[in-house]
Order: sequence, then C-alpha cells, then structure tokens
Amino acid sequence: MTRKAAIIGGGVIGGGWAARFLLNGWDVGVFDPDPEAERKIAAVMANARLALPSLSDVPMPVEGKLTFHGTIGDAVEGAEYVQESVSERIELKHKVYAQLQQAHPGVLIGSSTSGFKASDLQKGSPAPHNIIVAHPFNPVYLLPLSEISGSPANPAEVVERTVRIMKDIGMFPLVIRHEIDAFIGNRFLEAVWREALWMLKDGIATTTEIDEAIRMGFGLRWGQMGLFETYRIAGGEAGMRHFMAQFGPTLKWPWSKLMDVPEFNEELVDLVAGQSDAQSGMYTIRELERIRDQNLVGFLRALKDRNWGAGKVLKEHDERRAEAFHADLQARLETDAKAAPLLMYQGQVLPGWIDYNGHMTESRYYFVNSEAIDNLLRTIGAGMDYVAAGHSFYSAETHIRHLGEAKLGDQIRAEVQILSADQKRFQSFVRLMVGETCVATVEQLCLHVKMAEGKTVPAAPEVWARLEAIAKAHAGLPLPEGAGRAVGQPR
Amino acid sequence: MTRKAAIIGGGVIGGGWAARFLLNGWDVGVFDPDPEAERKIAAVMANARLALPSLSDVPMPVEGKLTFHGTIGDAVEGAEYVQESVSERIELKHKVYAQLQQAHPGVLIGSSTSGFKASDLQKGSPAPHNIIVAHPFNPVYLLPLSEISGSPANPAEVVERTVRIMKDIGMFPLVIRHEIDAFIGNRFLEAVWREALWMLKDGIATTTEIDEAIRMGFGLRWGQMGLFETYRIAGGEAGMRHFMAQFGPTLKWPWSKLMDVPEFNEELVDLVAGQSDAQSGMYTIRELERIRDQNLVGFLRALKDRNWGAGKVLKEHDERRAEAFHADLQARLETDAKAAPLLMYQGQVLPGWIDYNGHMTESRYYFVNSEAIDNLLRTIGAGMDYVAAGHSFYSAETHIRHLGEAKLGDQIRAEVQILSADQKRFQSFVRLMVGETCVATVEQLCLHVKMAEGKTVPAAPEVWARLEAIAKAHAGLPLPEGAGRAVGQPR
Repeated sequence: MTRKAAIIGGGVIGGGWAARFLLNGWDVGVFDPDPEAERKIAAVMANARLALPSLSDVPMPVEGKLTFHGTIGDAVEGAEYVQESVSERIELKHKVYAQLQQAHPGVLIGSSTSGFKASDLQKGSPAPHNIIVAHPFNPVYLLPLSEISGSPANPAEVVERTVRIMKDIGMFPLVIRHEIDAFIGNRFLEAVWREALWMLKDGIATTTEIDEAIRMGFGLRWGQMGLFETYRIAGGEAGMRHFMAQFGPTLKWPWSKLMDVPEFNEELVDLVAGQSDAQSGMYTIRELERIRDQNLVGFLRALKDRNWGAGKVLKEHDERRAEAFHADLQARLETDAKAAPLLMYQGQVLPGWIDYNGHMTESRYYFVNSEAIDNLLRTIGAGMDYVAAGHSFYSAETHIRHLGEAKLGDQIRAEVQILSADQKRFQSFVRLMVGETCVATVEQLCLHVKMAEGKTVPAAPEVWARLEAIAKAHAGLPLPEGAGRAVGQPR
Repeated sequence: MTRKAAIIGGGVIGGGWAARFLLNGWDVGVFDPDPEAERKIAAVMANARLALPSLSDVPMPVEGKLTFHGTIGDAVEGAEYVQESVSERIELKHKVYAQLQQAHPGVLIGSSTSGFKASDLQKGSPAPHNIIVAHPFNPVYLLPLSEISGSPANPAEVVERTVRIMKDIGMFPLVIRHEIDAFIGNRFLEAVWREALWMLKDGIATTTEIDEAIRMGFGLRWGQMGLFETYRIAGGEAGMRHFMAQFGPTLKWPWSKLMDVPEFNEELVDLVAGQSDAQSGMYTIRELERIRDQNLVGFLRALKDRNWGAGKVLKEHDERRAEAFHADLQARLETDAKAAPLLMYQGQVLPGWIDYNGHMTESRYYFVNSEAIDNLLRTIGAGMDYVAAGHSFYSAETHIRHLGEAKLGDQIRAEVQILSADQKRFQSFVRLMVGETCVATVEQLCLHVKMAEGKTVPAAPEVWARLEAIAKAHAGLPLPEGAGRAVGQPR
C-alpha cells in the first residue's frame, strides 16, 4: 500500500519535502492556509521533477498523489508521518501539533525547525514522544542531510522510525546525540553569516566577493569532505596531529570579531586527533588526497559543463589557449601535405570515464570521436557560431570497433581521416590512439542539416571549400583496415 | 621564452604552487632546506599530473622544468615571480624576502601567508612595493581561489601583474580591496573551526558527525554558489530582502558561543539586499534555482560515480530499489512469452548529457545502450560478482543509427533484442525509445572473455543457459530494419 505523509506548511522547505516524498512514491497531503500554496508547491515540484530523478540509476517509483486540504485534520488523515515546516514561532508550532495529535493520535511528527530543540517543541503536548526534529537543508529534494534531534522524551523506537522514513526518501539522517539549539549545520551557518555581515558592514568585501571567496575555494572542498577530513590532509604526511600543532596556536589570533575560543591544550589535540583517526584512519593521507582530487575534478568538470563558478574560470583558461591551438590546427591544414590523418584531439582519460573493469567505458570512445569531429568542424568554419546561425553537421550513423583498452590517466588522441565528402555529407574514419596502440576506430557518416527544417542541405561554400580540400588530400590515402564493416561480418 | 617562477618553501602549499606553474608550462626553481623537499614535491606532482590536466579540453602546454637549488639566490635566478610558502613566522618571511630582493632586485614576490597583512610582510624591505599576498587554498593545483591582498605601498601595476600571473596559471585572483588579517576565506574557516572545536570539546558531536553535517548539506551548496546567492534563493520568490526579514532577527538568538553581532537595522538590510541585487539580479529566483539544481545534480552525480559522501547515499538508495527492479526483470524473463524485445533501461536524459545543440549528445546513446546491456548481463547472472571472479563480456564492435533526438528531461528506454548468441558471444540490437519514437538503434557484438588472459572463452553454464533461453525466444522475431548495416551503405 502506498505510504502517506502530511506536509504542514508549503513554502520553499515544505514544498521541497513534498517533492521528495512524492517522487519517492509516497502520497502527500498538504495543509497551508496560504492561497498561493498550490501554485508554490507546483513550482517546486517542477524543479524537483527535473532534478531528483536524474540522480537515480534505477527506475523511480510511480509518483505519489498530491492533495491539498482545508484543515490540518484532513491533511493528516491516513498519514504515518507529518513534516511540519511552518514559521519559526513556537506558539504556532504548538498549535499545529495540538491539532495534528487531536486528529490523528499517535502520528509521528518531524519538525523542519532551524533552531528549536525537540524538548521546546514537545512542551504541552499530550504525546511529546511523537514529536522530533528532522531538520533539512534547501533544496530539500536534492540535499540529503536531515538532522534528527530528539529529547529524552523520545524513545529509541521513535528515533529509529524517523531514521527509516528519512532513508526511504533517500535522505541522510544524522542523529544528533545531544540536544542543542540549531543542531550542527546551522551553528556553522550562523558563525559564517555573522562574520559575513561584519565584513559587509565594515566595507571590507561585497556579497559578490564573499561568495567568490567561498565557491572558488573551501566551498568546493566541503561538498565532498568536511572540515576535519580536509584538515587531516592539510597536515600532509603527518596528518591531523601535525595540523593541530601547526595551526592550533593561531586559534588565539585576533582575526575575527568573535573571540571566545576553547583552550588549546593536549586534551583538545588528543580529542580531535583521536576522533579523526577513527573517522579517516583507514585511508593514508596519500589515498585521501587522491580521493579528494578525483571528487574535486568531478565537481569542477560538472561546473565546467555548465559554465558556472569555478567551471567558468576553467573555460576561460581553456579559451586563452584554444585560440593558439586552433590557429595551429588551421595552419597545419593549410601548409601540410595534408595527405595524412589529422590529429584533432588529445587529452587525458578522466576518472568519470572509467567503468567497473577499470577501463575507459565504451561510450567514451565515441565521445572522444565526437570531440575530434567537433574540433575538425570548428577548424573548417562550422563551429558554434555556424550552429548558432542555423546549420550543423548531424551524425547519422556510426560504427565502432573496440581493439584495445584505454585506462585512467592515459593520454588518448584521435586521428581523423576523411573517407569521402560531398556538399551535403562526409564520412570520417577516426583512429583512437594510446601511444602507438590503436584502441578503437570510429567510422561515421555526418549530414549537413538546416536545423529549423531538419533537412539535409549543402554546406556554406567556405565550409565546403575547406572540407573538400581535406577530402581531396585524403583521397590518396589507403582505405583503412576495418572501414566499411557491418557488426559481426567475417573479416 | 618559457617563463620562470621561484618557489620558496616546498611543503603541501609550495608543492601545489610548483605543480600549477609547471603544468601550465612555467619553469620552476625550488628552494627548501628540508632534505625531504624533493620527494615531497614529487608526490604532489604525481597527484597534480593525474588531476589538473583532466580539467582541460585544450592540450596543456609542455610541462616546465623543475629544478632544486641550495640557495634562495640560485632558485630565484631568471624568475619573474616568486611564491613564498614558508612557515607562518614573520621574522622568517622577512629574512627570505631580504635574500630574494638582494639576489634579484625588482622580482615580484607573492606570499602564501594565511594571515599576515601585506604591510606586515613589507616591513623593513627596501622594495616593499614588490611584496604582496597571494593566498591559495589547498589543493593549490585544483582550487582556483587566490586572494590577492596588497597594502598602500603596492602600486596598481603590481596588483595587476600579480592578477595576470594568477590567471596565466588558471587561478581566480580575488583582489581584496581593504587590508585585513586573514583576508576573506580564512576568516570564515576560523569562525567554523572555533565553532567545531567547541562542539567537540563539549561532546555535542564527533569529527565524523561534523563532517557529515557539512558535506551532506551546505557544503554541497557552497561549491557552486556562496552564502548570499544561496540565501537569495532561500528567500523564495521574494528574494534577499525577504530572507533578511525572516532570518535577520535570529541573529541575536543564543545559538553559538560567540555572540558579538552587527546591529540588525534597515541600513544593514539595504546594504545586503542592494549588493545581492547587483550580484545576482540578472537572474530570477526561478532561474537561480534551476542553475543551482543542475550544479548540485552535477556534484551529486560526480560523487555517485566515486561512491563517496552524498554519492554513497544515492547509491545505497538505488540499491534498495534495485533488488526489486532486477527481481522484476528476472521474473519477466522467466514468465513472459519472451518472444519480444526486453525493456532493460529506462531513465531520464540528464543535464550533463546535452550538447550545445540542446540535444542528447551522440555518445550518450551508446551509453544508454551500455546501461541496458549491463542490466541484461546482471539479469543473466553476469553482473559485478561474475566480473570480480574473472570473466566479463567485452564489446567488440558497435553500430549506431541516429534516427531522432532525445532532449533534456525526456524519459528514454532501451529495448533489447538478441539477434544471435553462442557460448562465446552474442549480438544484440537495441532500440532507444522516447515515447513511441525510436531515436536510435544500437547493434553490438559482445565477446565473453577471461579477463586475465584476454581470451575469448565459453561463458559459465548457468549464464549461457539464461542467455540461450532469451536467444531462442528471440529467434522467431523478424530481423530489425537497419540490422547488419555498414556506415553509409545504401538502404
């Protein structure tokens, strides 16, 4: 039977919870007196539908049913869990819990509160043991963290049930063992927020400068390792204890406005270093460095794909060198004998290209071919600007032979031979080389298309002239071994 | 002519700088009295060579020449820039600068100091204008941030020259307009570090719990947007001013130990909201949400590829549903008539799969085929465990026809037909479908290989039995249109 959650309060946070439950197959009943609530949740759902399923490699469950209700009692009917995300006013929260527990005694209630302790929330309730904190981070449908914080009134079973529900919707429930205001995440956010406001108020930095200082530096680190694992690495080969010895004393330096600090003594060093060993001691520092680097490469690559933040810096850095690179390719086209395949790609096999066998995954051979053909097109004047103006070469048909294996870190290059060409199409044969080994060949037919009409048309004269020159120069090359094959055809 | 940088101090930071300069084609002369320096820098270089080039889509320059020197004077000879990364002792730094400026008057010196102001560093120098702060973040060869902080003694030309050098090695130079201790990034790190040490000391949370609270939540956000752009979105449709109104008052709440806060007044709200408008006002909140979500999907996907942090949570969430999914496929194999192609993949077209035409990039069609074949192999008992035990099916040859276009967010599915099979190989024909449209077909020959020997051998009997059953059931299906084609062959 489909499980049901009630969502009380349908703002950015409540909407995010609703999306997470719905997309994980739960039915959701919403109560929010805001007449705009339905529209707002629809907007969050539209975002979530684009994003959350794209993280799954297994088909998602059938989306649950979303209903809106005029009363708290109706919304909670049949629900096994309630997520409360109303404004941060304790009396309002108490009122909501009273109505929930009257309509549905025994229902489990998790609160999205940013700062109230469970024992504050439970005050005055006839069933305090069923009220607990489940504090998420925006966007709730993507970020996995849910801080689970109970009071002594919550039996272990309630905590465990909350944990199971969080896991069922793909979250990472972090059980906070001691009740504190604001839990863990928000205490850090609060510290950073105050520091940032001081810098702004004192005119030291603008919001832009502060954001850049975060996302170009430590922000990237923190998406994959936290504070302590990061500093363990910073200690170098000597690890956490060395880091503490080196940087511990600076604790007292008058850098920021807020100065109350724990006493820096052996006890504190032992505590931190001991816990850090328990956390990360299964890896050497060298291993942690490699893990960190691969994660950072993944992040930076993701940002580069989107031309955003640190990825924009990478793109601009490429652009500075790309001009010289393409000028060089162009010059080679024009001055070389040209009766030889053209080197149109060279690069490194990236961590994200590796399959579980440790080899470059088969679709990446095709990817490298595409990169090489893109470079060729750019060189003959059919690059981004040409596409923007409405024409493009589309791949119609491709044949790939896998002859060897490229591995992580290998330098791979692509040599392009044009087998035939006319004004509307060309057929290419690309050898993918690692050192002197041909690891794959890719034969491909590309058609020149007017994109708006989806019709094959002749290429622009200046593009065709360059392509024709290459095709003529290559006409004397022998037909490569393996060209013209169908899959499984005898040799 | 090759440019040269001198690296004074070759620890984790100095080594990171050396790697960044070398891989961007600069020669590097190192001075570090540590007898281990050469080995340590070699280790950093080994990491950097694996990571940094994989961020580039343009061939990297030829790696520069690395030399080690017994004196500061030798190391700086011929260098146009010095990066100083010695210990944080001001008298040591002064001594180093004196030797540098004696050996090479006029050389530009950037310091990696975490906290000294440029004016502190410049004290006693005969050429204070040539000493400036260029503060990086570890790992220096991957994180782009370099905080450039000068004093009034630095002319604009020196700042600009430093900025140009940083850009030349791919960094993001952030010029700090006012001299403050610890610049921007470290003030935040200091605030968080103190808060973390308090939590540890008070026994609230362990290093592991703190790290999880960071990397499962706000750490992911901060790799792509900083504090203010993130909060602008959190304000929902009403933006930054609404966020301030909602959360500003909580500034005074006694959450953390460190309590001195700026006064929360209209002036502060105007300052923050005004700067935030200037920074992000070119995007609507809805646009910012979409950008953020795509970045987060990219990060989470990168972590999932590496089974690390939040990516591990995603993998485990998949695993919970994968069992049911594969049981379902299995059941279908065993009970269905089976004389029909098998649905072996369904999923969503992801942001990272899209090319500049807005279509699914051609290599991703091959990728979806591979996912479908992997699912089939898992279903017939040749999944990860089988591979771990030494056998695998390797793709030998593949033919792809591009018949239509899949777009961002489309649901794409793969239907597998087995054209032929024996104990050592099978030939598959996969239709990639979006709705009722076949957007591509993939014909493929896979060989069963004993991996250690790289030899084609018969599959395990139980695997062959399942494969044979499918092949027999599919034997009656008509040969699909387009099977057996070579590229460019007339229809």
